[in-house]
Amino acid sequence: MTEPDPWGVTTLELFELLEERLDGPIEQAVATVVAVDGSAYRRPGAKMVLGDDGSTYGGITAGCLEGPLRDVATEVISERSSTVVTFDLTDDDDGWGLGLGCEGIVDVLVEPVDDRWIEPVEAYHGADSCALVTAIGGTAGIPIGSRAVVAPDGTVVEIEGDQLLPEDVTASIEETARKRATEGNWCRRTVETEDGTVELFVDGITPATRLLLFGGQPDVRPVTRLARMVGLHVTVATARGGQADESSFPRADRVVATHPTDVAELVDERTHVVVMSHNYLDDRLALESLLETETPFIGLMGPRERFDRLRDDLEAEGVTLSRTDLDRIASPVGLDLGGGEPIEIALSIVSEVLAVSNEKSGGRLRNRRGPIHDRPVSQPD
Amino acid sequence: MTEPDPWGVTTLELFELLEERLDGPIEQAVATVVAVDGSAYRRPGAKMVLGDDGSTYGGITAGCLEGPLRDVATEVISERSSTVVTFDLTDDDDGWGLGLGCEGIVDVLVEPVDDRWIEPVEAYHGADSCALVTAIGGTAGIPIGSRAVVAPDGTVVEIEGDQLLPEDVTASIEETARKRATEGNWCRRTVETEDGTVELFVDGITPATRLLLFGGQPDVRPVTRLARMVGLHVTVATARGGQADESSFPRADRVVATHPTDVAELVDERTHVVVMSHNYLDDRLALESLLETETPFIGLMGPRERFDRLRDDLEAEGVTLSRTDLDRIASPVGLDLGGGEPIEIALSIVSEVLAVSNEKSGGRLRNRRGPIHDRPVSQPD
Repeated sequence: MTEPDPWGVTTLELFELLEERLDGPIEQAVATVVAVDGSAYRRPGAKMVLGDDGSTYGGITAGCLEGPLRDVATEVISERSSTVVTFDLTDDDDGWGLGLGCEGIVDVLVEPVDDRWIEPVEAYHGADSCALVTAIGGTAGIPIGSRAVVAPDGTVVEIEGDQLLPEDVTASIEETARKRATEGNWCRRTVETEDGTVELFVDGITPATRLLLFGGQPDVRPVTRLARMVGLHVTVATARGGQADESSFPRADRVVATHPTDVAELVDERTHVVVMSHNYLDDRLALESLLETETPFIGLMGPRERFDRLRDDLEAEGVTLSRTDLDRIASPVGLDLGGGEPIEIALSIVSEVLAVSNEKSGGRLRNRRGPIHDRPVSQPD
Repeated sequence: MTEPDPWGVTTLELFELLEERLDGPIEQAVATVVAVDGSAYRRPGAKMVLGDDGSTYGGITAGCLEGPLRDVATEVISERSSTVVTFDLTDDDDGWGLGLGCEGIVDVLVEPVDDRWIEPVEAYHGADSCALVTAIGGTAGIPIGSRAVVAPDGTVVEIEGDQLLPEDVTASIEETARKRATEGNWCRRTVETEDGTVELFVDGITPATRLLLFGGQPDVRPVTRLARMVGLHVTVATARGGQADESSFPRADRVVATHPTDVAELVDERTHVVVMSHNYLDDRLALESLLETETPFIGLMGPRERFDRLRDDLEAEGVTLSRTDLDRIASPVGLDLGGGEPIEIALSIVSEVLAVSNEKSGGRLRNRRGPIHDRPVSQPD
């Protein structure tokens, strides 16, 4: 954790932290927002980690709930049992609401970091995604925190620990969980059992958004730095072996030397790519290779005329870009921010990658209709 | 300089570096792009600093000219005389062009860092802006690097050093220079003298873009960090004395405690403001205060409904927002990037501030008509 501001750590860093702590004794708790009624700083599914030493990583509010959550976490860690706490922020002039600007009620699930976190950590780091199905209340007496993990194909994953959801409860939620595992979103469901109801929070965990930077010039560095800072998993692929030097790109998660024609091997459907080798031939070979992949985003550094030339050259070879290809190619890469400094160009690129990964178009929020967040309510099946 | 990547330093950091070195012996040179014919990485006016120990700060190309520029800088420092070097990048497959992706010819002015840099450093740090008028060629035998400094009102500023532009040359360029000093842009001009021509580069230096963050919650920190990283001068103004703690916002240039009604005192026509105290009353008082200023940007954190309520409350007090006010208010603040993590929200805010400061609207470059950069050619008068 080189992060100087523990409150502002990204979800990627949170999961890295969880991974580190999985092997040790239980000293930390994860707090997950599981319900919001009204306006709040973070949406359901947002997480933070709290240590039994009072340390906190990540912020699920603008700062005021972290104090009381520390006490809850300490108890959860020492008792090794999960709990749900409710914070009422509806009184904006007093109490929790003071300084928060929130006018909602927030439910937070607090759980010890134990072996049950192996699957979500692996999912976030690139293995199959999954859905965490967790009991957060109800009348059936099922302990809060009881858990099942469901894979995107609907199979129930075998997990460690004793607080498991009863099989019949899991079975009744399987289809919903399968969908959340695939889409990476969340929902709340109430399931009826013979002994009463159980409230479930279904939390889809999908791998981190990945960014592949094809290039080895110094302008790759500010993009790497910013992208990593906002929580993207960053690979730098250089076309020339001599430049595949990890020390040149200290913030990258991975630095590899590759031939431009092989760049596709580094790409899956979650990998956004920016082609910025500054070498026309290398860029053309990389683009050809990338067209064979499922990448949702191919950004091309350089003026539009350069892309026109690339396109003409590809067509001369019999490669015609489909509508889908044109949709995922961004040329020139970046949002229209107007700055010309390397770090400003990097900001423009990283902002576009974030927007595209969230299916947004990057214009000003004030010009957009509707709420800022798309998913204020529990997802339907 | 906490910057881990000297190549990616911002203009703000470059001018801070220049300020540090002004008092010492001449050990550094400034390289300024003064002409681009064709496509290149940076535009005229872009600067980097090179030390006589081989160190470089900032990048005016994607990395390939820095090597040869080092040698030029070493000579400029030891000779204490300026020079202009031309790099021909038109051959993309060989020589300088290799790996650059540029297809242009770039002229770079390299000057020793001496007392003549006092005025531009002061201008950048917030004093009156100015235009540097510098000889970069011609047949009249005027030494390259000969300089005059012109204020926005057209007066010629008295400067240190012996390499000054002749008075008649300065007089003939005064109106042009006055305009560049005001607008912060650049141009090239050829002036006829009795002895022949002199080629001039006119470089408008205006103060750094400033960002004032009104608020003291932890969510101010990631905004501060990102804004500073992309070269904005950042002030954090907290409404509550107890929170005006510099250690809480280590990346801010300045942390001040203020009453919300006095926030206007911290604002000038270059200061962009984000109101994010999360306290409704404080935000309302701050907004009222800001409406009296010349700030070009007032971003309001929080949902649109909150702004509607603010607006209603202001109108009940007899304050009606003008068209100009509505133009400069951004609610909700930020570009539409879709992320909900604190650092993602910060990215959205900082990207919008950069876009507005450059008179851009965000949105994807690929959807924009025309060239990426607005000023590829020398400015007309």
